Amino acid sequence: MDFKIELKKRATEINDSLDRLLPPARTYPGIIHEALRYSLFAGGKRLRPALALAAAEVINGCRRDIMPAACSLELIHTYSLIHDDLPAIDNDDLRRGMPTCHKKYGEAIAILAGDALLTMAFELLSMCPVNNSITPERLIKVISEISRAAGVGGLIGGQVVDIVSSSRNIDGSVLEYIHRNKTGAMYRVSVRTGAILSGAADDDLERLTRYADHLGLAFQITDDILDLVGDEKSIGKPVHSDLKNEKATYPSLYGMEKALLMSQEEKEKALEAIEVYDERADFLRELVKFVVKRNH
Amino acid sequence: MDFKIELKKRATEINDSLDRLLPPARTYPGIIHEALRYSLFAGGKRLRPALALAAAEVINGCRRDIMPAACSLELIHTYSLIHDDLPAIDNDDLRRGMPTCHKKYGEAIAILAGDALLTMAFELLSMCPVNNSITPERLIKVISEISRAAGVGGLIGGQVVDIVSSSRNIDGSVLEYIHRNKTGAMYRVSVRTGAILSGAADDDLERLTRYADHLGLAFQITDDILDLVGDEKSIGKPVHSDLKNEKATYPSLYGMEKALLMSQEEKEKALEAIEVYDERADFLRELVKFVVKRNH
Repeated sequence: MDFKIELKKRATEINDSLDRLLPPARTYPGIIHEALRYSLFAGGKRLRPALALAAAEVINGCRRDIMPAACSLELIHTYSLIHDDLPAIDNDDLRRGMPTCHKKYGEAIAILAGDALLTMAFELLSMCPVNNSITPERLIKVISEISRAAGVGGLIGGQVVDIVSSSRNIDGSVLEYIHRNKTGAMYRVSVRTGAILSGAADDDLERLTRYADHLGLAFQITDDILDLVGDEKSIGKPVHSDLKNEKATYPSLYGMEKALLMSQEEKEKALEAIEVYDERADFLRELVKFVVKRNH
Repeated sequence: MDFKIELKKRATEINDSLDRLLPPARTYPGIIHEALRYSLFAGGKRLRPALALAAAEVINGCRRDIMPAACSLELIHTYSLIHDDLPAIDNDDLRRGMPTCHKKYGEAIAILAGDALLTMAFELLSMCPVNNSITPERLIKVISEISRAAGVGGLIGGQVVDIVSSSRNIDGSVLEYIHRNKTGAMYRVSVRTGAILSGAADDDLERLTRYADHLGLAFQITDDILDLVGDEKSIGKPVHSDLKNEKATYPSLYGMEKALLMSQEEKEKALEAIEVYDERADFLRELVKFVVKRNH
């Protein structure tokens, strides 16, 4: 498998679904639909929906039926980026080389575009076709897990601790709390969404969840490394933003050598968690290798 | 029934449930829980949950079982107030005589507290006990309706049009769009939530929905009137804010006399919609009378 081509193919499929599932750009009132589509279709690898779909594949779930749920994960990711970029939070002018939502549409519309995407995520979830695999009970379980992962015990909690810890010396446990919640919770729930809606048995769910947790950490450690040693063009956002914002990172806390080693360890653990599966898990395997390889 | 006492009694019951259903105030990270509780427990009549519970009563639903769903409506209402008050939107310093969330906790935490409440609303919904009355299918239907009512085709859409119409001459149809969506959609879905989760038949659902739509308009027209002729102390927020923000209102568009007449007409239509019911609908009847009587 040429992983980059495969990832791109899957991103295109997800983009087509997002476009179909969302209200058309010219829906009244136009500005909010334009703004939320601007941020949603600004690029991005669609990793969270891809994880949900890939987890479904491992246990023979129906990709098409879980697509609305997979897309809901991307809406939540995009909403969190729009709000994080706001002047009161990270105050970023650029995202993937383009003006951030509030730079383009103003702060009021950016706040509301974020709110709209978060709300729409739950609308998409409620639209999943109910059938033998996606039972109503499983759908409610997924809604419950996604709302927790995106909430104060997940994404938002991680963001809050990140903000209040900025410019302070923090230790490894706080750094881990931030990443486990700010990014890890959504990776975990993405994989679980695909698995649960496909009717995964408990042991499958446990293995895939373990995979997701190690993937999330591998990803975050690598992101921290790239912020120090990457170049702006290839990672698509300004480098040294952690330094600028005085944020603790894995390299700043453990040193570059140890951080590189940690990312390799997380990759190995992720691969180990899913070693019982045949080639249906290859996308997940290639993904974690790809994530860590960005270092080199 | 002394309606004010009854409304207060119900608000207390709802507050107790909100307090029990939310994570404790001292949950880590403390600041976000403190901030969202600050705004959630800043007073307020709890009209939306009260409407859900009252609609359930009309058709003999179980108040206790639908309480998490009823509470979710208040979380959405509070989130929308926190975000509306932000400097980039209405820039209000006071709400019910107290500093607004961003004045007390800063803008970053206020944005995230709003996000947290919106997300938690869907967590509460997914927590409703599934049983003979609250079937999983009905719960998914309610999640779908609430996400639509709170989204770009409801609350957020109304807010967007309100913002872009400010300082412009707008006509009656735009004003109606704003109110039907910004406030009306949540009143409507509040009543429908209580009814659907109680297993309402189609004709009951239709009557209660009609009631809610007229109640919503009666409420909004009265709010506009009070902003002109009320006093700050009794309505608990600064008066003349519509003038300050150059917002179109019913009195500015139709004149005070006509606006008063319109609020009476909406009240009559609301009462008519539920005239087939016995005393179990008395709370709904007294509510719409109370809403309009605030004029006098």
